[in-house]
Amino acid sequence: MRPGTVMLGEPLPNIPWQDRPAGCREVIWRHSENPVIGMHPFPAGWTVYNSSVLPYGEGFIGVFRVDHRCMTPHLHLGRSRDGLRWQIEEEPIHFQSADPDLGGVDFAYDPRLCRIEGRYYVTWCNNYHGPTIGLAWTDDFRSFHQMENAFLPYNRNGVLFPRKIGSRYAMLSRPSGPGAAVAFGDIFYSESPDLCYWGRHRLVLRRGPRKWERVKVGAGPVPIETAEGWLVIYHGVADTCDGFVYSFGAALLDAEQPWRVRYRCSVPLLAPEAPYETTGFVGNVVFPVAALADAATGRLAVYYGCADSVVALAYARADELIEYIKANAE
Amino acid sequence: MRPGTVMLGEPLPNIPWQDRPAGCREVIWRHSENPVIGMHPFPAGWTVYNSSVLPYGEGFIGVFRVDHRCMTPHLHLGRSRDGLRWQIEEEPIHFQSADPDLGGVDFAYDPRLCRIEGRYYVTWCNNYHGPTIGLAWTDDFRSFHQMENAFLPYNRNGVLFPRKIGSRYAMLSRPSGPGAAVAFGDIFYSESPDLCYWGRHRLVLRRGPRKWERVKVGAGPVPIETAEGWLVIYHGVADTCDGFVYSFGAALLDAEQPWRVRYRCSVPLLAPEAPYETTGFVGNVVFPVAALADAATGRLAVYYGCADSVVALAYARADELIEYIKANAE
Amino acid sequence: MRPGTVMLGEPLPNIPWQDRPAGCREVIWRHSENPVIGMHPFPAGWTVYNSSVLPYGEGFIGVFRVDHRCMTPHLHLGRSRDGLRWQIEEEPIHFQSADPDLGGVDFAYDPRLCRIEGRYYVTWCNNYHGPTIGLAWTDDFRSFHQMENAFLPYNRNGVLFPRKIGSRYAMLSRPSGPGAAVAFGDIFYSESPDLCYWGRHRLVLRRGPRKWERVKVGAGPVPIETAEGWLVIYHGVADTCDGFVYSFGAALLDAEQPWRVRYRCSVPLLAPEAPYETTGFVGNVVFPVAALADAATGRLAVYYGCADSVVALAYARADELIEYIKANAE
Amino acid sequence: MRPGTVMLGEPLPNIPWQDRPAGCREVIWRHSENPVIGMHPFPAGWTVYNSSVLPYGEGFIGVFRVDHRCMTPHLHLGRSRDGLRWQIEEEPIHFQSADPDLGGVDFAYDPRLCRIEGRYYVTWCNNYHGPTIGLAWTDDFRSFHQMENAFLPYNRNGVLFPRKIGSRYAMLSRPSGPGAAVAFGDIFYSESPDLCYWGRHRLVLRRGPRKWERVKVGAGPVPIETAEGWLVIYHGVADTCDGFVYSFGAALLDAEQPWRVRYRCSVPLLAPEAPYETTGFVGNVVFPVAALADAATGRLAVYYGCADSVVALAYARADELIEYIKANAE
Amino acid sequence: MRPGTVMLGEPLPNIPWQDRPAGCREVIWRHSENPVIGMHPFPAGWTVYNSSVLPYGEGFIGVFRVDHRCMTPHLHLGRSRDGLRWQIEEEPIHFQSADPDLGGVDFAYDPRLCRIEGRYYVTWCNNYHGPTIGLAWTDDFRSFHQMENAFLPYNRNGVLFPRKIGSRYAMLSRPSGPGAAVAFGDIFYSESPDLCYWGRHRLVLRRGPRKWERVKVGAGPVPIETAEGWLVIYHGVADTCDGFVYSFGAALLDAEQPWRVRYRCSVPLLAPEAPYETTGFVGNVVFPVAALADAATGRLAVYYGCADSVVALAYARADELIEYIKANAE
Amino acid sequence: MRPGTVMLGEPLPNIPWQDRPAGCREVIWRHSENPVIGMHPFPAGWTVYNSSVLPYGEGFIGVFRVDHRCMTPHLHLGRSRDGLRWQIEEEPIHFQSADPDLGGVDFAYDPRLCRIEGRYYVTWCNNYHGPTIGLAWTDDFRSFHQMENAFLPYNRNGVLFPRKIGSRYAMLSRPSGPGAAVAFGDIFYSESPDLCYWGRHRLVLRRGPRKWERVKVGAGPVPIETAEGWLVIYHGVADTCDGFVYSFGAALLDAEQPWRVRYRCSVPLLAPEAPYETTGFVGNVVFPVAALADAATGRLAVYYGCADSVVALAYARADELIEYIKANAE
Repeated sequence: MRPGTVMLGEPLPNIPWQDRPAGCREVIWRHSENPVIGMHPFPAGWTVYNSSVLPYGEGFIGVFRVDHRCMTPHLHLGRSRDGLRWQIEEEPIHFQSADPDLGGVDFAYDPRLCRIEGRYYVTWCNNYHGPTIGLAWTDDFRSFHQMENAFLPYNRNGVLFPRKIGSRYAMLSRPSGPGAAVAFGDIFYSESPDLCYWGRHRLVLRRGPRKWERVKVGAGPVPIETAEGWLVIYHGVADTCDGFVYSFGAALLDAEQPWRVRYRCSVPLLAPEAPYETTGFVGNVVFPVAALADAATGRLAVYYGCADSVVALAYARADELIEYIKANAE
Repeated sequence: MRPGTVMLGEPLPNIPWQDRPAGCREVIWRHSENPVIGMHPFPAGWTVYNSSVLPYGEGFIGVFRVDHRCMTPHLHLGRSRDGLRWQIEEEPIHFQSADPDLGGVDFAYDPRLCRIEGRYYVTWCNNYHGPTIGLAWTDDFRSFHQMENAFLPYNRNGVLFPRKIGSRYAMLSRPSGPGAAVAFGDIFYSESPDLCYWGRHRLVLRRGPRKWERVKVGAGPVPIETAEGWLVIYHGVADTCDGFVYSFGAALLDAEQPWRVRYRCSVPLLAPEAPYETTGFVGNVVFPVAALADAATGRLAVYYGCADSVVALAYARADELIEYIKANAE
Repeated sequence: MRPGTVMLGEPLPNIPWQDRPAGCREVIWRHSENPVIGMHPFPAGWTVYNSSVLPYGEGFIGVFRVDHRCMTPHLHLGRSRDGLRWQIEEEPIHFQSADPDLGGVDFAYDPRLCRIEGRYYVTWCNNYHGPTIGLAWTDDFRSFHQMENAFLPYNRNGVLFPRKIGSRYAMLSRPSGPGAAVAFGDIFYSESPDLCYWGRHRLVLRRGPRKWERVKVGAGPVPIETAEGWLVIYHGVADTCDGFVYSFGAALLDAEQPWRVRYRCSVPLLAPEAPYETTGFVGNVVFPVAALADAATGRLAVYYGCADSVVALAYARADELIEYIKANAE
Repeated sequence: MRPGTVMLGEPLPNIPWQDRPAGCREVIWRHSENPVIGMHPFPAGWTVYNSSVLPYGEGFIGVFRVDHRCMTPHLHLGRSRDGLRWQIEEEPIHFQSADPDLGGVDFAYDPRLCRIEGRYYVTWCNNYHGPTIGLAWTDDFRSFHQMENAFLPYNRNGVLFPRKIGSRYAMLSRPSGPGAAVAFGDIFYSESPDLCYWGRHRLVLRRGPRKWERVKVGAGPVPIETAEGWLVIYHGVADTCDGFVYSFGAALLDAEQPWRVRYRCSVPLLAPEAPYETTGFVGNVVFPVAALADAATGRLAVYYGCADSVVALAYARADELIEYIKANAE
Repeated sequence: MRPGTVMLGEPLPNIPWQDRPAGCREVIWRHSENPVIGMHPFPAGWTVYNSSVLPYGEGFIGVFRVDHRCMTPHLHLGRSRDGLRWQIEEEPIHFQSADPDLGGVDFAYDPRLCRIEGRYYVTWCNNYHGPTIGLAWTDDFRSFHQMENAFLPYNRNGVLFPRKIGSRYAMLSRPSGPGAAVAFGDIFYSESPDLCYWGRHRLVLRRGPRKWERVKVGAGPVPIETAEGWLVIYHGVADTCDGFVYSFGAALLDAEQPWRVRYRCSVPLLAPEAPYETTGFVGNVVFPVAALADAATGRLAVYYGCADSVVALAYARADELIEYIKANAE
Repeated sequence: MRPGTVMLGEPLPNIPWQDRPAGCREVIWRHSENPVIGMHPFPAGWTVYNSSVLPYGEGFIGVFRVDHRCMTPHLHLGRSRDGLRWQIEEEPIHFQSADPDLGGVDFAYDPRLCRIEGRYYVTWCNNYHGPTIGLAWTDDFRSFHQMENAFLPYNRNGVLFPRKIGSRYAMLSRPSGPGAAVAFGDIFYSESPDLCYWGRHRLVLRRGPRKWERVKVGAGPVPIETAEGWLVIYHGVADTCDGFVYSFGAALLDAEQPWRVRYRCSVPLLAPEAPYETTGFVGNVVFPVAALADAATGRLAVYYGCADSVVALAYARADELIEYIKANAE
């Protein structure tokens, strides 16, 4: 597999990037100046993490989870030239909605940003009488149009596919329960003809059996299409007598039937180890949410939340990553 | 309101019926020979409860929850001339399905039977990697065709409306969590253009605030269309230091926007009191699942499960019931 | 000890009474026509239990816990000629209060009625941002004057002594936690110079160690003064894998230092066994709340709630009861 | 299989017995005058249940669980001519022990009585810093000699085999956790050369997968040797939102390697249905503890505790029971 | 508002103080050499935190929570010239008490020190059959006189007002439940004519609704009287899947009716961020307990416990703080 | 007590050692270059901790708990010249077993290594239908022979004595429950004539009463025989609202009746304080597992797991340690 042919997407020559450090044998390695976005992104913001970015114009654009000083999460827009230094707007994103009753203002968190057929979509954990998947579109990152919530509560980590599967939109999500520290969750796949009505639900990845992901699993970045199917980076959660530990997992899903798992990596790609990952508002969390990909070279840059406090960056090469998943598949 | 005009449906002259006993002041009263279906409906069946019936041909037809001797629930077809004496088939219903992976055989329970535009639909609590709403249709009660599960887990008590709302099918359901004794649940409304993809989810009835329904609420019989909107009989659950208590609740929903509650009765219509309701496999449960309605006279016959053991019957007059709901609305 | 001298109070010749049935060897025996007050005391009332009575005028008066049809508890006044047949008012007691913010209307339950120096006091479980001890006085059972809540939440089963101890009013109560099924609670003693400010808190009876009272204990009727100290009948609670079991316990407290236990009966006086005790809204509950005493003869009539559904009556002779407590003390 | 040859033991012509009632199709049927031992077996005893009997002399002897009035369980000896009418001694059994620190006096419950090579052994749930398996022997039912506890806590339902397996004593038990309502437990097998040291532990029956036994399983009567291996009647426990339900299960174990299951019956033989089984101190419990067997005729009489309150009796024929187990094996 | 007039108390020219660091925009800022008291204050002491100080003589005096090596908390006296370097006595404070049964020796923690009308009072979490509010007075910090416990269990964080309200002493406290990690608690106000009997309980601050204080809230330093009412700094607690997070909250209460909240700051003043706050025996805890105030200049020095391990100091200006509370009030 | 005579074992001149640092007053002190084994002991290994070592040949040998990248624990052999720098084999230890069904491959953790009469034994937490004590022997650290599991589940922290007690092998263990974060556990003693059958179980150390060990206690290194009895270093666990805290405890047991505690130190010897102890996969854990002893000089080197991530070393002198235990005994 040649690096430049493994991913089916577009080139992204200005992807943030650092080569693997000398001596490092990991398949994924941390940015040397992590975290790339620290606490207090602006005076009213307390923490910033679990955020999503895309290439846009000359640079990059992102939707950020900013927990305000009252520790309530909101979605904020951010822009960057280089993907490393970000300007995050102090006003939360305002969603226009035909129905003001759909939630979206308070307790909006863990956004994903996905481009499908030229339009941009935000999915997030929305609070509509319980957590569920909020959905909005924008063409210009100025006006955001809130659509119907995709599912009934209780659901989190809704992640769209960047193209239709067959003739339908597709989404991964993680049904679960209410509450701050739910202790179960599997990844399901659903389809929609119109992004309004959803069905044909299929289980994709069940939690476990290994300890690092035996509590719950949830989708992370928008799936990346490769010659080996959809590359999915997700979070897996272990339980300890000092709380949960969140790590990166990875799998390859069938290109046209993404509910079929081709390879599932039995080990985490990255687990909390750096101080900004083990310590913070919620220690021992690395939570992948977005990936930039340069199809021309196979380079990947993964943005991930650390300790529910800051945003960090890690790098990988798609060809190596796919080999690693296959080599470590069960 | 004249009794014979309150309900918008069809006459049902052979509805099972007993007049209100002398001295009874309740808005709903029990059949004098309850339970109408006792334990051990056939040798391999242990209990029979939480079951649904409709007029069919000269008599009645029903889909029954029968917990087999291993206490695993299955769906069984039953037939009756008079709605009181039932022949329940010993073989569980076999659902034909394009996708054998949708669940439906084991742990299928709490069925509802609904006729829409001449076709019969069964909804039930299906086990697809968690409880969710199974859906099947039949035209002849011989072959049953399983469709896609309506929602992602975890969901129970899916109940179809007997006609489209606007141009779409409509369903009530109760999202919740996994496990045998979930302690929360509200009633939501969802729509579908085709019974495959579902969306436009709206909260209808939240649990509480009064004790009798402060733990959870879930839809019961198929909604009954009346001059005052949809008459919905549901179950409300109280918590005590000796387990849960299930009672009958009732509300009137807007005819064209059923997620809008016109009147919600602040008191239960019926709560466990008879010995076959307070004692059994799960004591203190009355669980309404089906209602026969004679639009010509306003008579209602409600089938309900008792103590997770047997099936009982209660009677009401639609006009009185509607008045009662309005008089006791908050 | 002669029966007619053991109790220090007044004669009550018209006390409800039945002699011990032939063959019965129990120290306390049930009224033959139990329950004396059944469910549905009036149309809007669902259950009636855990209620308190006193002699008044020619007959008796009582404050009753009536759970309305919505299962929310309220306090109602009742009157009786013979202590067996009761007229319960359909309107809840209205408490006049200088401060409308003290609670008392909704979720008022488990009342005790106590006469001190000619005035009548009601204590009950009041809902003031959590359960606590409500307090009111009346001279005529027409106007009730709500006083300050005695304690901070979370507290239940507040029971006044019928005379001052030293120069101060005294109360037993059971501090615990919020919620419907708290699993701990001990009986404490507190004093007040004025029924407004309370202090000098002392532990009286800790739960356990025997199974029948190892979960929690709470005071029952107003203490009865005897030649052997205060006779206290209380409830003790066991835990089983089918919920809690409430029984009658008894102890004798020092006359002037009631926080000192002279004798504590190691066995329950009465435990759920009759059908109206084992089955109902909350099965396996006998909950003593009031005792009538005829000092002239030593006869005692104890009113107790059964299964959170009805009111029953049991009889004992004070001299025998005291002997029994002493004989079974640890 | 001829009835008189299926069991390998001795004849017991005076076994308590009633033929199957006309119309009954069950493999096991209840004694017509159940319960055979009611509450209050003597004045200081509250309930009597979960007890074990054997033929002895002209009649029968038994070790009974009697919960005293304080609801603390103790072991008591009882004697009967006919196995139906029992004289239970008011004094608990006194165990002589070389080490007074082994427990045995308080909180001793659920005894089994087993005869091995002419000597009688009692096993029970003993309280030694947690529940574990107490063990004692007697030759005359006058002096009882307490031996070492078989296992470390936390363990219950220890049941000896009536002969050595290979050259070693053998026991079934159910390791679990502390507390009154443990929610898990599987049946294990252990061996001992001398009834003092135990090892070679093997899993025999895991809980589940069917609902009636998905919470826990525990051995019941002493295994009965048959031509088809060891007949084991055990209890299986289901969870409901109104507490646990205990039923009878059955399996056939290999004669010489009893940790190997030959047949496991997928359905319960008997589940709570009679009023004395569904209602009581702990409702919905049938708990088999002892079986008398007449090898000459294949008759079986099973003693079982009901609702943690009383002792009842059920009958079966060994040949039919074995056929039933095999027919219903998975 | 001029800084020197906002507080109504006395000047304290020797208050520990550091000006706000350049570039800092926070309303409250950390001492540059935090923690001011580290672990192991003396050989038998393990941690020191959640402690209270007052001006005394030429310098300062304090009552310190020292968890001994066995991790059991005790109260110790400490003295300092400058409020930064402390001499903590190795012997715990000995409380003289008329009743030796009131608790106070073991498991005494989270003390507050308050001067009222020239006398010094210590309140603390005392263990009297459950946590409750201990109370003692001293005139010389040599002999300490233990008074009656203020309330029944279960209560913590009792904080006296520094003057009578009306004619009565006043205290804030936080009723809750037993156990090490209670998950609820609101701040109540109570009054006493004599510091022995307490009543007139009023809710002041309920937990939530924002995440940072949605689990529980509890009073911190002795309220500070200002021109805008009582300045109350308290702790608010958030729940995460890695345990609780404790932050500083603030409110202004009415001067004469302190149960009326004039302004409540919707955001925390300070949350765990420094390493000595995020890591330690109990990570992510900042717990304010005492505040020194210089009325002449408006300077405030707040002592707070960090991670249940050490004592730190933060500074603020009263006028800025009051403006901040008002600007961020809901 | 002269240092060189306090321990009854053999000299170990090459024991890893550092003298107590100047100014340190602790009875046990940390190695200056801790951790001695860091994370990622080899590419497939994630963490290494809770491991056991012994002198062997010219140097040292050890059995290490290595959690692989999937966070599943395995046992690995390691060798070292100096006890500080270790070569850990990448392949897990392969246990030969007559019965392949005894567990031992997956989820094997917390090994102890013990030499008895010239043969080496490994005990560990084995997964046989629940955690229990696995046991194996080796003479050459090349072939390992798995024996029967010592006990029924659920058990952990099985630690052999290095010689027979009386004529029998002896083991400490900690019965408990299933699950990742069990919240109870006491240390028991058991004996075996042959390392196959175990009995004569006795309680040794119960958890509590002091906070540092009030949740659970479990044996650590193989007991060290001294002139004052068996020196046992164990772990004690405290509960906080941020998870558990594990510390070192110590006791002296009777030489011939080790279930009798001669002295129990009321304070922990060492508690989490260094960064590698407070932060990691499971913060705030110090878990002692092995001790090297030089009987000639009284030097002790204790290996302990830190934060479930790495291995550290601490030093003590046996004579001082014994004096400390006695001085701090209750």
